[in-house]
Amino acid sequence: MTSDPFIRIVGAEFVRADPAALESYGVDALGQGHPPDLVVIPGTAPEVAAVARLCNERRVPLVVRGGGTGYTGGAVPTRGGVVLSMERFTRIVEIDQTNLLAVVEPNVITADLQRAVERVGLFYPPDPASLETSALGGNVAECAGGPRAFKYGTTRRYVLALEAVLPTGEIVQTGSKAVKNVVGYDLTQLLVGSEGTLAIITRITLRLIPKPPARATLLAVFADVQAAVDAVTALIARRVVPAAVELIDAESLRVVRDRMGEELAPPTAGAMLLVESDGIRAAVDEEIEQVAQACRGVGVMRVTLAADEAERDRLWNARRLISLALRATGLLKINHDVVVPRGRIPELFGVIDELREEYRLTIAAFGHAGDGNIHVNLMVNPSDPDERARARQAERVLFERVVALEGSISGEHGIGFAKAPYVGIELSPDAIALMKRVKAAFDPNGILNPGKIFP
Amino acid sequence: MTSDPFIRIVGAEFVRADPAALESYGVDALGQGHPPDLVVIPGTAPEVAAVARLCNERRVPLVVRGGGTGYTGGAVPTRGGVVLSMERFTRIVEIDQTNLLAVVEPNVITADLQRAVERVGLFYPPDPASLETSALGGNVAECAGGPRAFKYGTTRRYVLALEAVLPTGEIVQTGSKAVKNVVGYDLTQLLVGSEGTLAIITRITLRLIPKPPARATLLAVFADVQAAVDAVTALIARRVVPAAVELIDAESLRVVRDRMGEELAPPTAGAMLLVESDGIRAAVDEEIEQVAQACRGVGVMRVTLAADEAERDRLWNARRLISLALRATGLLKINHDVVVPRGRIPELFGVIDELREEYRLTIAAFGHAGDGNIHVNLMVNPSDPDERARARQAERVLFERVVALEGSISGEHGIGFAKAPYVGIELSPDAIALMKRVKAAFDPNGILNPGKIFP
Repeated sequence: MTSDPFIRIVGAEFVRADPAALESYGVDALGQGHPPDLVVIPGTAPEVAAVARLCNERRVPLVVRGGGTGYTGGAVPTRGGVVLSMERFTRIVEIDQTNLLAVVEPNVITADLQRAVERVGLFYPPDPASLETSALGGNVAECAGGPRAFKYGTTRRYVLALEAVLPTGEIVQTGSKAVKNVVGYDLTQLLVGSEGTLAIITRITLRLIPKPPARATLLAVFADVQAAVDAVTALIARRVVPAAVELIDAESLRVVRDRMGEELAPPTAGAMLLVESDGIRAAVDEEIEQVAQACRGVGVMRVTLAADEAERDRLWNARRLISLALRATGLLKINHDVVVPRGRIPELFGVIDELREEYRLTIAAFGHAGDGNIHVNLMVNPSDPDERARARQAERVLFERVVALEGSISGEHGIGFAKAPYVGIELSPDAIALMKRVKAAFDPNGILNPGKIFP
Repeated sequence: MTSDPFIRIVGAEFVRADPAALESYGVDALGQGHPPDLVVIPGTAPEVAAVARLCNERRVPLVVRGGGTGYTGGAVPTRGGVVLSMERFTRIVEIDQTNLLAVVEPNVITADLQRAVERVGLFYPPDPASLETSALGGNVAECAGGPRAFKYGTTRRYVLALEAVLPTGEIVQTGSKAVKNVVGYDLTQLLVGSEGTLAIITRITLRLIPKPPARATLLAVFADVQAAVDAVTALIARRVVPAAVELIDAESLRVVRDRMGEELAPPTAGAMLLVESDGIRAAVDEEIEQVAQACRGVGVMRVTLAADEAERDRLWNARRLISLALRATGLLKINHDVVVPRGRIPELFGVIDELREEYRLTIAAFGHAGDGNIHVNLMVNPSDPDERARARQAERVLFERVVALEGSISGEHGIGFAKAPYVGIELSPDAIALMKRVKAAFDPNGILNPGKIFP
């Protein structure tokens, strides 16, 4: 593919075809994919539009890339073409304190926006584990979640308006700065979670909320997963919805202990809950006491309240370290963010136990118990082809069982190409055919992120 | 049109072609439209699918109807065809207290679901003024709002999954009982607010939240709208987001006084705010005190706290009576639910004043100040053609000015056929063309609710 027409659009400085670039832009956190033929780095929406038109005319695959922190290959080509990196779109355009909204370019880092709005007493709740490196455009494209989604919802809830470039080159505005808008179809919400297959997001208007003035964090250790889930059920029965309820299983606790030297719970612990409450001080105190009572009511081994912010940060950092600890094992970490109705988490852990036994696999599971969204990590020796094959079998069974539990094969990571072969387990042929017609309504020539979502 | 094939699907008892039926199924709260040729009242999703297939084969317009409480003609034919009334779909299928969700058929009345879930300590927040007669299917199709949307969001936020029948007869499931789901495009959110133009909703899974244990209502009277909006800005600056902040202008207060004998505020009042706070008792007390201070800080005429639930109910009933009082004038009430970023409400009221003067019209304005969603009611003598023409001119100017204020021409009522001529003021030709392609992806022959949304 010749780079000349792209250079005419964005300048020679922003077109790369050197092997190092092609390699680094050809992978995300999944560690698989195909290098692009060219990397194009536009600076404005009209440049994005010109690149899209060119790719559309020449039928060249066009893959949009933000932070590259995804787990399903969403930002990675499957068969060459152009990677369109949004890395120059890094501006927080506006933080509007009267209307409680922020306007950002798509490559603003999630945590940078959070810090900027918290400085003026506002709050942007979505908190994917990758928040220090993930880009908001990618958060929107994948509908990122995180622990706080239990109380605050996922990225979807905060997206008010988008500027987006269609693969045919039109620049469209969806939604508005008004918090309610029912004029025509909600293209904003359709683009959220569309994984870069429908349009290229060039500007995002996000709703903000007041920053909760106080918070408290509680850690509860249980003999087994069933007891931990019983505690979650008990607190729901008390009609308490904390900001976050994270569940960490024994295998995950063991890896954190072995690899990071962090003793979050005694070796006899079978599961741990990390619960955060936020709001005004009096409400937080009442809520966290309710959580403690709910835990005690089901036979907790130990309940600890974080004494101060330093203790709180230590607990949450340990929670975020789980993924790093799992990676530090040197094993391949196949991370599936399955989700079931909360009450069916014990059944999901039953399935995980069966998979451990049947397929002789090490599986570490942890995640957002409040949402029923559990990260099931198959830990596989990459140089053992038999183990890889067993993992491949186990993951299909996992997805089938999750759907049978009225759940979904992905709660926040998306499908990309990694889960595309399994979409038919969850969606009917009629639903998939309908989605393909929607895709064609945006992208008649199928140039945008080909090979993703659909089986 | 012959009714025989429809009788074969649903039975003779459920097909109506008598003049009384055709007339009553040919209007909604807008009071305009066209009678259908037939009314068909299916009892199951497969019956709905068979009716859709038949209409699709014969290219017969198919208009879905729920409670018929809409303001924009969404449930009313524009040129005959079949009205498909969902009135037999009235079952609350399930209230799941563990997973905090409800499964309902589309013609469950909004308030009936609210009462059912509140009995077990749960809460379904969306509260359109018509909640005692509106159906949840219509709430979903229009994305209904209400006062509590300020804190709790609109219907959109609560829809987890849908069963829907495509106009070509396929029955599809969208979403799941899992609160997070990013598998494929979010067809659930695309159907919310699609005004019966994409698919026929036959079952709805709704997210619930714990019922707030306490609430408090405050009424504040101001000399003018500017002072009332200053109070709203002041409470946002304190980072307080109450459950509801309703603004009622002097004209609306006058009509309530004249028609209902309710003296909500002294005759010298220029505007009133009705504020509700909910949550745990300590939080509510703190928040409502913050609201009172914010009001006093901008020079309120009078602040009253509802002393008990009876007083609270009286205030909220008076708020809901405004529409009835306006109707009782015998004038045509042309109700436009425009929305602007909250900080621009004073500019919006400036526009309303200009319209009153320029077009010599009586205009009563009230609504959801927290959201910037103001119901602008042009009160028109139906037998005065000149006044009707002036109202027609004024409404176009209103919409143009609202869009110039970065707002939207509809916050919760939808477009239907009433606002379809004005959609081009807000949406670009490229966005409209894209929406039409999405429409065709669902409804290739354009049988479903023709004449709606698009200019």
